[in-house]
Amino acid sequence: MTARVFAPDAEASGQVLALSRDEAAHAGRVLRLRVGDPVRVFDGRGREWTAAIAAASAGRMSVALGPAAMPAPETRVRYTLAAAVLKGDATDDVIRDAVMMGVARVRPFVSARAETRLAALQRGSRHERWQRIAVASAKQCGRAVVPAIDPPAEFAQVVADAPDPVRLVLVEPAQTAGGVPAALGAVAAPEAVTLAVGPEGGWTDEEIRAAGAAGWTAVRLGARTLRASTMALVALAACQAVWADE
Amino acid sequence: MTARVFAPDAEASGQVLALSRDEAAHAGRVLRLRVGDPVRVFDGRGREWTAAIAAASAGRMSVALGPAAMPAPETRVRYTLAAAVLKGDATDDVIRDAVMMGVARVRPFVSARAETRLAALQRGSRHERWQRIAVASAKQCGRAVVPAIDPPAEFAQVVADAPDPVRLVLVEPAQTAGGVPAALGAVAAPEAVTLAVGPEGGWTDEEIRAAGAAGWTAVRLGARTLRASTMALVALAACQAVWADE
Repeated sequence: MTARVFAPDAEASGQVLALSRDEAAHAGRVLRLRVGDPVRVFDGRGREWTAAIAAASAGRMSVALGPAAMPAPETRVRYTLAAAVLKGDATDDVIRDAVMMGVARVRPFVSARAETRLAALQRGSRHERWQRIAVASAKQCGRAVVPAIDPPAEFAQVVADAPDPVRLVLVEPAQTAGGVPAALGAVAAPEAVTLAVGPEGGWTDEEIRAAGAAGWTAVRLGARTLRASTMALVALAACQAVWADE
Repeated sequence: MTARVFAPDAEASGQVLALSRDEAAHAGRVLRLRVGDPVRVFDGRGREWTAAIAAASAGRMSVALGPAAMPAPETRVRYTLAAAVLKGDATDDVIRDAVMMGVARVRPFVSARAETRLAALQRGSRHERWQRIAVASAKQCGRAVVPAIDPPAEFAQVVADAPDPVRLVLVEPAQTAGGVPAALGAVAAPEAVTLAVGPEGGWTDEEIRAAGAAGWTAVRLGARTLRASTMALVALAACQAVWADE
């Protein structure tokens, strides 16, 4: 596969533009690209071009955009993943996987049984790291869209501020009898859906009740207990399979 | 959740039996169980009992089986996962996830673009480690069945010796137009299916042709490129969603 480079300022064929410091460093040191090498350039909002390295020196690099190119297609349904922040670096993989599964937006949150607190996340540079991971995952999976990664929030905010017509909270097998196929198989694919996945310790009953009161539907993923870090991937795969949404 | 203990020799309510050295050590040192503590005991073949620790001393432990209990249900379809061995320890997670998704059997294999060779795997203790991971994952996800983990093989052997009526090889988006919903949505759930997922570098054209000649169907998982370590999880989730098989 031709190397893919993220350039949010890319606008039109014929343009020559400088890459950001991060992108230039990655293209030069990791991908070892040189002047004249072919690349694909994407703008993070869905457009992509064939291109070539136009100049490279001392950590700087510019690309010349050629004809428009076709990136990997986006899903029909617009998926927002509301993801509980997990222990250690496990959220990194959740974001990487969600981007690869085609989500439009990720909303990281902390909830009652989270192992971390919002203030600690806000002091650190987690949000910036998650955004870099989203760019890297878009490059690898072939998308020209870099999903929005929101700053971390409290689950109550996510519950209150979720405008999508279908809102699902993924729960433990014991907490509901309704699985994704049963809950969604008979429903036409919506325009947009928000999926909320909880932390390692699961949801409190109060959180599930609050989500229910706000119009969210509790669904389970199979009859077995899944690892928290895999729930988003399984939920997205199940929705896309049920709705034949590639 | 009550702690779950694996005892392949468990047979009937009323029985008192010694745990294996590994299980006794886990129950004593990690779970800190003591005489009289309630546990669930499962035999790895689908039966489970409520039980209690009957004796514990010097690294030994025995359990007294009470009434039969209900483990997490098994899937209707019998899933065999043929999984390319991945770099480093990534296969550990693939096996952990596959067990949690309810597979009946895992067949690890090496193929043309694998980063490791069969002889190297056979010299090491990978197969034993994978079997221990399968036990640990069964405990965590609530299954009373411990899936069979085969010794590593060559992909050619897997292609030649796969008796299931539905045999799918999961390929890169560019290698076929047929996704899981398109390929399987109109098909009634089979009794058994084998899913083959490839290594980081993907399949060679020759491997896909050989699988096709042996009656396997090439399907893709969405239109984006997935990480090799997530393909099994996404494929199993997609099949279970399409067949409403929890």
